[in-house]
Amino acid sequence: MRTLISETVSHTGKSVKVEGWIYLRRDHGKLIFFTLRDRSGFLQIVVNAKVSSSAYEAAKDIRPEFAVKIEGIVKKRPENAIDKSSATGSVELEAQEIDVLSKSEALPFDMGGKDLNLELPTLLDNRSLTLRHPKVSAIFKVQETVIDAFRIACKKKDFTEFQSPVIVPQGAEGGSEVFEIKYFDHKAYLAQSPQFYKQIMVGAFERVFTVNKTLRAEPSVTTRHLTEVTTLDAEFGFIDSWLDVMDMAEYVIKFMIDSVNNKNSDVLKMFNVTLPKVSAKIPRIKLRDAQEIIFKRTGRDNRQEPDLSPEDEREICRWSLEEKNSDLVFVTHYPIVKRPFYTFEDPEDKGFTLSFDLIGRGTEWMTGGQRINDYAKLVENAKKRGIDLKKSEIYLQAFRYGMPPEGGFSFGSERITMHILELKNVREASLFPRDMERVDERLSEIDKENTKTH
Amino acid sequence: MRTLISETVSHTGKSVKVEGWIYLRRDHGKLIFFTLRDRSGFLQIVVNAKVSSSAYEAAKDIRPEFAVKIEGIVKKRPENAIDKSSATGSVELEAQEIDVLSKSEALPFDMGGKDLNLELPTLLDNRSLTLRHPKVSAIFKVQETVIDAFRIACKKKDFTEFQSPVIVPQGAEGGSEVFEIKYFDHKAYLAQSPQFYKQIMVGAFERVFTVNKTLRAEPSVTTRHLTEVTTLDAEFGFIDSWLDVMDMAEYVIKFMIDSVNNKNSDVLKMFNVTLPKVSAKIPRIKLRDAQEIIFKRTGRDNRQEPDLSPEDEREICRWSLEEKNSDLVFVTHYPIVKRPFYTFEDPEDKGFTLSFDLIGRGTEWMTGGQRINDYAKLVENAKKRGIDLKKSEIYLQAFRYGMPPEGGFSFGSERITMHILELKNVREASLFPRDMERVDERLSEIDKENTKTH
Repeated sequence: MRTLISETVSHTGKSVKVEGWIYLRRDHGKLIFFTLRDRSGFLQIVVNAKVSSSAYEAAKDIRPEFAVKIEGIVKKRPENAIDKSSATGSVELEAQEIDVLSKSEALPFDMGGKDLNLELPTLLDNRSLTLRHPKVSAIFKVQETVIDAFRIACKKKDFTEFQSPVIVPQGAEGGSEVFEIKYFDHKAYLAQSPQFYKQIMVGAFERVFTVNKTLRAEPSVTTRHLTEVTTLDAEFGFIDSWLDVMDMAEYVIKFMIDSVNNKNSDVLKMFNVTLPKVSAKIPRIKLRDAQEIIFKRTGRDNRQEPDLSPEDEREICRWSLEEKNSDLVFVTHYPIVKRPFYTFEDPEDKGFTLSFDLIGRGTEWMTGGQRINDYAKLVENAKKRGIDLKKSEIYLQAFRYGMPPEGGFSFGSERITMHILELKNVREASLFPRDMERVDERLSEIDKENTKTH
Repeated sequence: MRTLISETVSHTGKSVKVEGWIYLRRDHGKLIFFTLRDRSGFLQIVVNAKVSSSAYEAAKDIRPEFAVKIEGIVKKRPENAIDKSSATGSVELEAQEIDVLSKSEALPFDMGGKDLNLELPTLLDNRSLTLRHPKVSAIFKVQETVIDAFRIACKKKDFTEFQSPVIVPQGAEGGSEVFEIKYFDHKAYLAQSPQFYKQIMVGAFERVFTVNKTLRAEPSVTTRHLTEVTTLDAEFGFIDSWLDVMDMAEYVIKFMIDSVNNKNSDVLKMFNVTLPKVSAKIPRIKLRDAQEIIFKRTGRDNRQEPDLSPEDEREICRWSLEEKNSDLVFVTHYPIVKRPFYTFEDPEDKGFTLSFDLIGRGTEWMTGGQRINDYAKLVENAKKRGIDLKKSEIYLQAFRYGMPPEGGFSFGSERITMHILELKNVREASLFPRDMERVDERLSEIDKENTKTH
């Protein structure tokens, strides 16, 4: 019977079998120390030639990343050897028998440090190895929490989860950054967003959400863009006003932050970050008013710009924190030209939309708004914007047959994870990041392989 | 304040506002009856010209699928008018004011029946409308339960959820049925399965699962195949034997069946189906022994075949039900040639693999097994089978650095949903089914549009 590392403390004095990977090895003459890693934590193993010569013989050849099974006695450590930073730091396992389950080649770099100080290309070229480092895998425990929290928050509000397709007949928003697939004798495309489908699903379930892959042929390599993203999308009908949409987005984002706080405080400590400060009500400010504030604070006059510049985003967050005690701020009423064709125009503020971005600590976290639910208006707007909906008959259908006032919001799980952990590059928050230069391996390398082998 | 339909009974005698879609309309002179649908259920609305002439005027033009807001008094129905088949069958709403939120065009077919008796092409050509029918949307409540139950079952066993990529550098299993993407100046492909990635992730978290899109260029139109599937995949390391994998699969499938039983008994009733009978321990039988039994029962001699024919699958399920009182049966030990290159060979039964299929009511539900975890053996096997792993350096990497004995299993959420509800075609269990002839619309129609517009 295997004992998990996290359970060893409660087995002090007893014989247990543990399994895992060797994380660290230190030699002290006839004593060999290992740190063993399993899914539940880390444990110090002591191999003493005087206690078990067979274990000692086996241990001689064991290096980091060997997968092993170790039988031994859980012993209390002397008071001065207790490691308070580890959950099992009060004990160690005195090895009596060691089985090697799988050997490892010599590692290309040291994996034993608290940080894995590698350049990004090296981190990604060795992804299957680097993902095993506790400070790398921890990022994806946070991502798991973020996605789970999104699901739980939506379910609490009576949303139904649905599966949105990846293969689509055309790009949803008419942009050019869409991947084309050879689809038998036809062309098809990869979904840039589940937008059309979540709107359709409002007709069936009223309130829907989806956790879905979205694919964009981002033609530049930046620290914020990936070609493949796991997107969190919600949409719901029978809203009384677009403010319902912002309220729901606020509820969801707060639920997510609370969840990370509850489940991943160890990771926050590991990364030495604190969660964003959120006021009881996240401040809401129109784009034009934000630009006015920025002008007054900095003298920078962007009051006619259709969007916030990165510097503006940082400045409005400074204002929000100083004046409203919140790291997060909703900026609303983006002009029509900056929003997709299906965005609802504010009848009281013509030229501007009932839309919002949630800006956090200087960058965009989430986007949303009310949508046009009237069929004739939607078709007219698409035409005006040069959007061809000929292949999206199924989308238009949803509006021909009675669509109530509705809206929704969307955000990328990688970006949220990046923002929460204050990572420098979104690639760190993607298990297997894809961009124009890499799909697992660097594409230039793959091409070389192709030339060699064909 | 809106009241949900499911809450109306507890508001009997009071004035409420409800919102939803008109499902049915019946006229009786100066009385108009509507059935209103919202996310929580159905409610009878009575519009009486004598009670409210304004509501009556508004109601005159209201047809099915109009989205409306109705204010009125919840009234107890007379004893002889109670509809016991409906949760709100003891009340009705007497309308005082009706607002039309969104009109609907005339429907192309009647949506009011208990069944939506449409041919499959019509069902799919009008997907945004047909998804609103209660017997269609109910299918996707079951699918939601299936996927949720998979997640919950895995989490209970300490699995971590991860996001597997859709864009991959090459097909995982060397098959030809892979979609090719134009990836900037390169070629990339769509993932046929998360197999390689879930194995890699064992190295980081030991136990992992993923709910993921898998894409296969299925070159034929059958009742069981789609090009896009939402697949449920689990994989875990440090197994003592391949039986651990089958035990885990059994636990998950039972958990799923129980969950559907608990959450969707109304849908089972609607479809007039019962859940598969599962014995305390699902029977397990080697392929060769199954073929021997089939030979004895039917005289059909397929004892040298490498796989079960569809007729064989049905026969072994008959045997399982008659002899073992189970609608589900594990068939194990498929020959090496029928399994992917990474499948573990049974050292005690050479030529056969430590693999299983779960067969339920005559068709395959799930597949799984132990994998080769030794690097040299994996490479050798790939070579033997002509599988080129040159672009899968990242996959091989996971095995070069210590991979414990491991295995996993995989199944499609659409197929499981189809099997549970005994649907005739897997397309009914996919919200937006894709096959070689359809991506939302029929591809031949889309091509016509292309010719027209370009």
